[in-house]
Amino acid sequence: KSEDRLLGGLLAANFDEGTCLSRYQSSSYRKLSPHKPSSYLIGKIRKYEALYKQCGPDTESYNEAITQLKRGQQIRSSSCKYLVWISYSGLGNRIVTLAATFLYALLTDRVLLIDRGTDMGDLFCEPFPEKSWLLPLDFPLNQFDNFHVKSPERYGLMLRDEIINENGTSSGSFPAFVYLHLAHDYDKGDKLFFCDREQLILDGIPWLLLRSDNYFVPSLFLVPKFSEELEKLFPEKVTVFHHLGRYLFHPSNTVWGLITRFYRAYLANAEERVGIQIRTFDTGVGPFQHVLDQILACALNEKLLPAVSRDKPIIPPQQTGKTDRKPKVVLMTSLSGGYYERIRNMYWEYPTVTGEVISIYQPSHEEHQQTEKQFHNMKAWAEMYLLSLSDTLITSPWSTFGYVAQGLGGLRPWIMVKPVNHTTPNPACGRAISMEPCFHAPPFYDCKAKRGIDTGKLVPHVRHCEDMSWGLKLVGEN
Amino acid sequence: KSEDRLLGGLLAANFDEGTCLSRYQSSSYRKLSPHKPSSYLIGKIRKYEALYKQCGPDTESYNEAITQLKRGQQIRSSSCKYLVWISYSGLGNRIVTLAATFLYALLTDRVLLIDRGTDMGDLFCEPFPEKSWLLPLDFPLNQFDNFHVKSPERYGLMLRDEIINENGTSSGSFPAFVYLHLAHDYDKGDKLFFCDREQLILDGIPWLLLRSDNYFVPSLFLVPKFSEELEKLFPEKVTVFHHLGRYLFHPSNTVWGLITRFYRAYLANAEERVGIQIRTFDTGVGPFQHVLDQILACALNEKLLPAVSRDKPIIPPQQTGKTDRKPKVVLMTSLSGGYYERIRNMYWEYPTVTGEVISIYQPSHEEHQQTEKQFHNMKAWAEMYLLSLSDTLITSPWSTFGYVAQGLGGLRPWIMVKPVNHTTPNPACGRAISMEPCFHAPPFYDCKAKRGIDTGKLVPHVRHCEDMSWGLKLVGEN
Ligand SMILES: Nc1nc2c(ncn2[C@@H]2O[C@H](COP(=O)(O)OP(=O)(O)O)[C@@H](O)[C@H]2O)c(=O)[nH]1
Ligand SMILES: Nc1nc2c(ncn2[C@@H]2O[C@H](COP(=O)(O)OP(=O)(O)O)[C@@H](O)[C@H]2O)c(=O)[nH]1
Repeated sequence: KSEDRLLGGLLAANFDEGTCLSRYQSSSYRKLSPHKPSSYLIGKIRKYEALYKQCGPDTESYNEAITQLKRGQQIRSSSCKYLVWISYSGLGNRIVTLAATFLYALLTDRVLLIDRGTDMGDLFCEPFPEKSWLLPLDFPLNQFDNFHVKSPERYGLMLRDEIINENGTSSGSFPAFVYLHLAHDYDKGDKLFFCDREQLILDGIPWLLLRSDNYFVPSLFLVPKFSEELEKLFPEKVTVFHHLGRYLFHPSNTVWGLITRFYRAYLANAEERVGIQIRTFDTGVGPFQHVLDQILACALNEKLLPAVSRDKPIIPPQQTGKTDRKPKVVLMTSLSGGYYERIRNMYWEYPTVTGEVISIYQPSHEEHQQTEKQFHNMKAWAEMYLLSLSDTLITSPWSTFGYVAQGLGGLRPWIMVKPVNHTTPNPACGRAISMEPCFHAPPFYDCKAKRGIDTGKLVPHVRHCEDMSWGLKLVGEN
Repeated sequence: KSEDRLLGGLLAANFDEGTCLSRYQSSSYRKLSPHKPSSYLIGKIRKYEALYKQCGPDTESYNEAITQLKRGQQIRSSSCKYLVWISYSGLGNRIVTLAATFLYALLTDRVLLIDRGTDMGDLFCEPFPEKSWLLPLDFPLNQFDNFHVKSPERYGLMLRDEIINENGTSSGSFPAFVYLHLAHDYDKGDKLFFCDREQLILDGIPWLLLRSDNYFVPSLFLVPKFSEELEKLFPEKVTVFHHLGRYLFHPSNTVWGLITRFYRAYLANAEERVGIQIRTFDTGVGPFQHVLDQILACALNEKLLPAVSRDKPIIPPQQTGKTDRKPKVVLMTSLSGGYYERIRNMYWEYPTVTGEVISIYQPSHEEHQQTEKQFHNMKAWAEMYLLSLSDTLITSPWSTFGYVAQGLGGLRPWIMVKPVNHTTPNPACGRAISMEPCFHAPPFYDCKAKRGIDTGKLVPHVRHCEDMSWGLKLVGEN
C-alpha cells in the first residue's frame, strides 16, 4: 500500500500533503498499476529533481541564465540549461505535449518551466519538490504570442537559412535562446529537431522555448542520440506516458474536489466501470445519430455493455440470489449532452437481456469547447481523470482528451473508427494496440540520407496509429 | 414480511403474480408503513371484492343493468349499482380523484368501473380479483366528451330545475343514469352532491357517471350519511389516501420496470433519500431563479440537505473512519431539467460543510406537460412512485403529483410556499400537517341551513390546507 502511494517509487515521498491532496490520495482511487517504473527511470527522476533544486527559479544559476537571456547573447556556457513550455491548444493536447516536453527535458538535463497560460497553475499541483515549475512572472520573454510559425527566432528558420550550425551563429557564439516550433503546422526546417546533428547544436543554447500541440515522443525514440537512454528508461516502451503522466500531473485541490466528489457520489458503488469518451470534430455539437449508433454498436459488439430487450418489460438478473449486485456504471464524457440522454433513457426504458443494472453518468455537457474558461478546463481535467479510473474504455479517434485518460489509467481502449460521410463504420471500433498517445504530425524524414522515409516502419516499437494512418505511436514489440 | 407483502392485509393474497409484479414486490422497495389499516376497512374491502365478483362485467347482474341503461329507463330496482369514473386531467389529478371515487363506491356499494382514457390500462394493474375494473369497450354511453358542465344529464342541473327528487323524476321512476360533474368548474347544484338528501336520491339510480379532477374525500367526511361509516373505516383519518392508494394503484409491469430499474441503478445505494418535487404553474418551463433559491432555502433551512462551502475546495467527512459512508441521495422531479442541473452542479463544484456526499438524480425532464402521450405518463407515474420511496420529501404547492407521492409514501412533506410576484417566499416552505391530499374545490354550503358556511371549521379532522387557503384536507385530531 505504501509502494502504491508513491506509484511504485515514481513519486518523491517528502511533499507537503495538504497543498496537493491528489498526489498521495490517488492510489486509493486507482487500481495498482501492473506496470512498474524501471529503477533506472526512478533514479533518473531523482537526479532530475536534484538538478531542479540546483537550477530552478531563485537560484544563482537561474539568475545568471536570466541575465544572459536579457543581454540576448551567451557569455560563457552556463551550468544550467532551461526549457520553457508554452501553453497552447486544448487541455488534452497540452497534457500530452507537456509529458513529451518533460521527457525531452529529462533526456537533455534541462530545467522545465511552464508558461501558466490562463489556468495551468489552477489545474495542476507542483510536480517537483521545493521549486515551482511555473515560469516566474517576471520572465523577460513573456510575450509568447510573438513565437509562432513565422518568428525569426524559430530554430527551423535559423537552420534553413544556415544562420546556425555546430559552431554557433556567424559571430561564433550561440544565441541565448531559440524558439522550437513543434506544432501541427511546423515545416521541414522545424522537423530537423528530430535529427542528431540539430540536437547537438541545441546543446549549446541555454534557453529553449517550445510550442507544440503534439505528443512527439515516438519520434524521440528514432533520434540516435536518445534511443539508447530511452531503452534504459523504458524497458516497457508503451508506458512512457503512463509513468511520466502519473509523475507530472496531479490535479490541484480544486480539481481533486471535483474528481473525488463525483467519484464518491456516482461511481464508487460499481460492479464494473466503463468509460465512454465522445468527441466529434464535425461542425455542430451533435448529437449525431450515426455517432450514437456507433457507440452502441461498439459497446454491444465488444460486449462491454449488454443489449436491451424491447419485448419484455422486466428481465430479472440471470444469477439468482445475486439480486443485490452492484450496477455496472458507465461514465460518459462529451461536449454534447445528447448521447448521454439517449443511452441513459434506453437503459431506463428497457431491461437488459442479462438483467444487469446499468447506471449512466455524464459530469458535464459544456456544448462548446471553451479553452479559455477556467472552470471549464477544471471539469475537462476532472473528466479525463475520472475516465482513467474505468475498467474498460471506449474512446474517440484523434482525441488527445481520450489519450490522456487511457494513458493515466494504463488502459488499452476500444477506439471508435472515424466515421466518413456521417455513416456508422463497420466495425464500429477496434482495440488499441497500446495505451500510448498517438503523435499526430510526425516527420517523415531520414536525417542521414536526407530524404523522405516512412518513419512508422523503422523499428518494431514505433508504428502507425490505429486512429490516424500517418500518426506514430509506441507499441509493444511482439 | 408476509404481512408486509399484503400491506398489512389490505391486499388479497390470491392474485397471479406475473401479470402484476409490483403488487407483491412493492414491499421490498418500501419501508413497512407504521399505519395499519383497520380490520373494519379490511373487512369492507373483502366484501367489496365479493360484490365486484358478483356484479362486475360479464355477470348476469351487469348485463341486466346494461339493458336498463340502453332502454334509458329503470324497469325495476337492480340488485347491483355502478359508478363509472371518467378519465380526466393530469395523472396526479386522476389518481387522487380515482381514490376518492373508490371511497365513494365503497360507501355506496357500487361497482367502480373506469374509463380507460388514453392510457389508464397501460399504467395500472387490475386492483380487484378476477374481474377487470376497465369499463368494457362496448359500454353504450362511450362518448364521455358529451358529459360536461353543460350536459342535460348533469345531476346538478336536474336538482336545480327540480327534475328529480326523492320520488324520482316526474314520471315517478328514476333515470337509468345521471352524470355527476364534480370537476373544479362545478356549480352550486353539483355541489349538492355533498348533502344527505341528494345522496339519498342517488341511491335509487343504478348508473352514475362521475367526472372530477379533485380529491373530494374531505367533504365526504362532512356528509352525515357517510361520516359514521368513515370513522369506523378510518380510525386514523389521515390515512385514507395512504391505504386506498396502496390498495388501488399498482404500477403495470412496464411502469414497474421503469421504477425498479431506476431505483436499482441510482437510488438503492443511499444513506438517506430526499425527494424534491418541483412543479410551477407559471407560464414558461423555467428554470426560475426564485424557485431554485426557494428549493435550496427550504432544503438547507429545514436541514434536509447540507450547505456547501465556497471557500474550501475539499472538506473531509466529519465522522472520521466513516469515509465509506453511502451518499445522501436526492431524487428530483420536474418538467424542467434546469433545477436539477444547477443543484447537481452546486454539489459537484463545492464540498458540503459536513463533508457529506450528495448525489442528485432526475429521471426525466419532459419540458412540457403532455397529458396524452403514453410514455410520458408512464414516466410521470414512475416518478410519483419513486418520490414516494423517499425518507423525506419537499413538494410544490397545489400539485396533485406531489400529493400522490406523499400519500403513497406515508410522508408529511415540506410544502413550498407559493411564490408571489416571482419572489422567493420567506419561510420557503412549511411542514404539512398531514399526508393527505388537499381538496382544491370544496363546497362551502350548509345543506340543512341552506346557506354558506366555512366547511373548514366544522370538525377537527377537516381543515383548510397548508398550500391553498380555501382547500380542505383531513388532518389528525390533536
Ligand atoms: N468537460 C469536457 N470538455 C471537453 C470534452 N471534450 C472536449 N472538451 C473541451 O474541448 C477541449 C478539447 O481539446 P483537447 O483536450 O486538447 O482534446 P482533443 O481536441 O480531443 O484532442 C478540452 O480541453 C475541453 O476544454 C468533454 O468530454 N468534457
Ligand atoms: N414526468 C414528469 N411529468 C410531470 C412532472 N410534473 C408534471 N408532469 C406532467 O404534468 C402532469 C401534471 O398533472 P398532474 O399529475 O395532475 O399534477 P398537477 O397538475 O401538479 O396537480 C403530469 O401528469 C405529468 O404528465 C414531473 O415532475 N415529471
